[in-house]
Amino acid sequence: MTVTAKRWIVGVDIGGTNVTVGVLPLDGGELLASRTLPTEPHRGAPFVVDRVVRMIEDAMREVLEVHGGDRREFAGVGIGSPGPLNRKTGTVINTPNLGWRNFPLRDLISNAVGLPATLDNDANCATYGEWWMGAGRDVDTLVGLTLGTGIGGGVVLHGEIFHGVSDAAGEIGHMTIDLTGRRCKCGNYGCLEAYASGPAIAARAVEGIERGAESMLAELVDGHLERITAATVYEAVVREDAYANEVMRETATFLGAGIANIINILNPGAIVIAGGVTRAGDHLFVPLRVEVRRRAFRSAAEACQILPAALPETAGVIGAAGVFKKELFGSV
Amino acid sequence: MTVTAKRWIVGVDIGGTNVTVGVLPLDGGELLASRTLPTEPHRGAPFVVDRVVRMIEDAMREVLEVHGGDRREFAGVGIGSPGPLNRKTGTVINTPNLGWRNFPLRDLISNAVGLPATLDNDANCATYGEWWMGAGRDVDTLVGLTLGTGIGGGVVLHGEIFHGVSDAAGEIGHMTIDLTGRRCKCGNYGCLEAYASGPAIAARAVEGIERGAESMLAELVDGHLERITAATVYEAVVREDAYANEVMRETATFLGAGIANIINILNPGAIVIAGGVTRAGDHLFVPLRVEVRRRAFRSAAEACQILPAALPETAGVIGAAGVFKKELFGSV
Repeated sequence: MTVTAKRWIVGVDIGGTNVTVGVLPLDGGELLASRTLPTEPHRGAPFVVDRVVRMIEDAMREVLEVHGGDRREFAGVGIGSPGPLNRKTGTVINTPNLGWRNFPLRDLISNAVGLPATLDNDANCATYGEWWMGAGRDVDTLVGLTLGTGIGGGVVLHGEIFHGVSDAAGEIGHMTIDLTGRRCKCGNYGCLEAYASGPAIAARAVEGIERGAESMLAELVDGHLERITAATVYEAVVREDAYANEVMRETATFLGAGIANIINILNPGAIVIAGGVTRAGDHLFVPLRVEVRRRAFRSAAEACQILPAALPETAGVIGAAGVFKKELFGSV
Repeated sequence: MTVTAKRWIVGVDIGGTNVTVGVLPLDGGELLASRTLPTEPHRGAPFVVDRVVRMIEDAMREVLEVHGGDRREFAGVGIGSPGPLNRKTGTVINTPNLGWRNFPLRDLISNAVGLPATLDNDANCATYGEWWMGAGRDVDTLVGLTLGTGIGGGVVLHGEIFHGVSDAAGEIGHMTIDLTGRRCKCGNYGCLEAYASGPAIAARAVEGIERGAESMLAELVDGHLERITAATVYEAVVREDAYANEVMRETATFLGAGIANIINILNPGAIVIAGGVTRAGDHLFVPLRVEVRRRAFRSAAEACQILPAALPETAGVIGAAGVFKKELFGSV
């Protein structure tokens, strides 16, 4: 009997909007056969699982067509999914965006493709991907924030994802930064997410215009203020709109307080920020670094780089594959 | 040549007010020969070091008198000191309370007593002591908060003190919980310490009385409101003073937001609270647990016990000895 050497890992990143799948060489190198499709969770869990399985099969086939070899050369599948989830059982406990409850995602995929699989939180995977191959590849301890519809977070300590005692660590979006502040959709007041998520940035921008601020934002949406999104704000920032820039400076103040809190608690070597907000570039990062230095302990602030993500589209897939590799081999 | 088996470790806890020294049996058991003297930092660093060295010598002598044996049976000394400090060089970088800058504390003590020594942050040591032998001995991941003149913090993950990349992790007191809130002595606004340290609790109590609140607090200090300390507030709470109880409930709200932030980031198995504030008992802990459940992620809040410290006088000494044992033997 010959044992086929393993050469590849499949990474899967399932989000509320899109699914991305790709293949990583086990011994390092670039992501191959990457593909993205809409998740369409309203079509039901079996549909989504079937879509993911087909994407995995297609990606594996593409890699074998280009590089030759044999299906047995795939070691397995690393899956990232919104949480909360139970890594041990491979079950998604409750994901409002996808409508899943106690859903055995890992084993459904694993059985369908006939390969072992791991499951971890999507924000953890994205942070791990940035640590492994992205903006954080030179540090051993970092925290990742993804600013999108919500604010996701991941914590990598000494090169390992830190999960806490019930797989719930890294929920940075609901950190209180203003006790009696803006109401968050979680029901509390003053969560970071209520200030610096994409919808929160858009809402703050609209509020200011409704109070009379002058801005090209209104023109960009032909006066339909309800159409202003965070992306509209970033576009106006890049076009040097003074008001949009002010909205970004405020975003930097809120985000800076949250990041300073993380730095004071964990003293990481880097904070990596992902999401559309990074499109604002220095309009965000310059005031953000000022606010962090103002609020964080000096020695901790000096030890911490604040960086935009380097793998905005693929960190989740790469990190998910990394989680599988780490579980199988003990290191990436 | 015979090698003498090691039986004891000395623990040293240096604070701005007091120094405590004791001896722990290497193979476990209770703290022996514990003694406390005022630090008297105004008498200068050499005085403090000399006092610590004499206390160590006295404690070692007492243990040998009671238990017999030989000085060579002492493995070494674990020292806890206010930071920031550099564990590798054993140097205290800058401690305003003690007036030390770049002070080679570890080696001065080590050389004077002729034993190897380790140095770690006092709040880290206190948290490690609670994890090893105190309130947190059944969990592997916990965060400790000491509410005193300031708010100190320590983070123990999987049974190890987490130091971060520059020995600055665990600075929980200066977490922003209210962006535009109370001014903190650090210069920022809305730090947890500005609401829940001893002086902050006293200040908030006085402010309410000045605004007209009725309370026995005024009588307890014969009308000299400037004499109200946090201890006065705890005394009035225990005596069922309604206003003092309200001050504690507010303290629980502030502290609860800070603790919920820690729980959302780290998902620990326990939060251990030390300091005089624990004298308020259920008047603090009941509303505190309510606030934490309100603000923290449910699965993370459910996984986390919120406990008063079990070793209020000795956690620092025990933890400092534990740090030495861990460094020498790889585990405690």
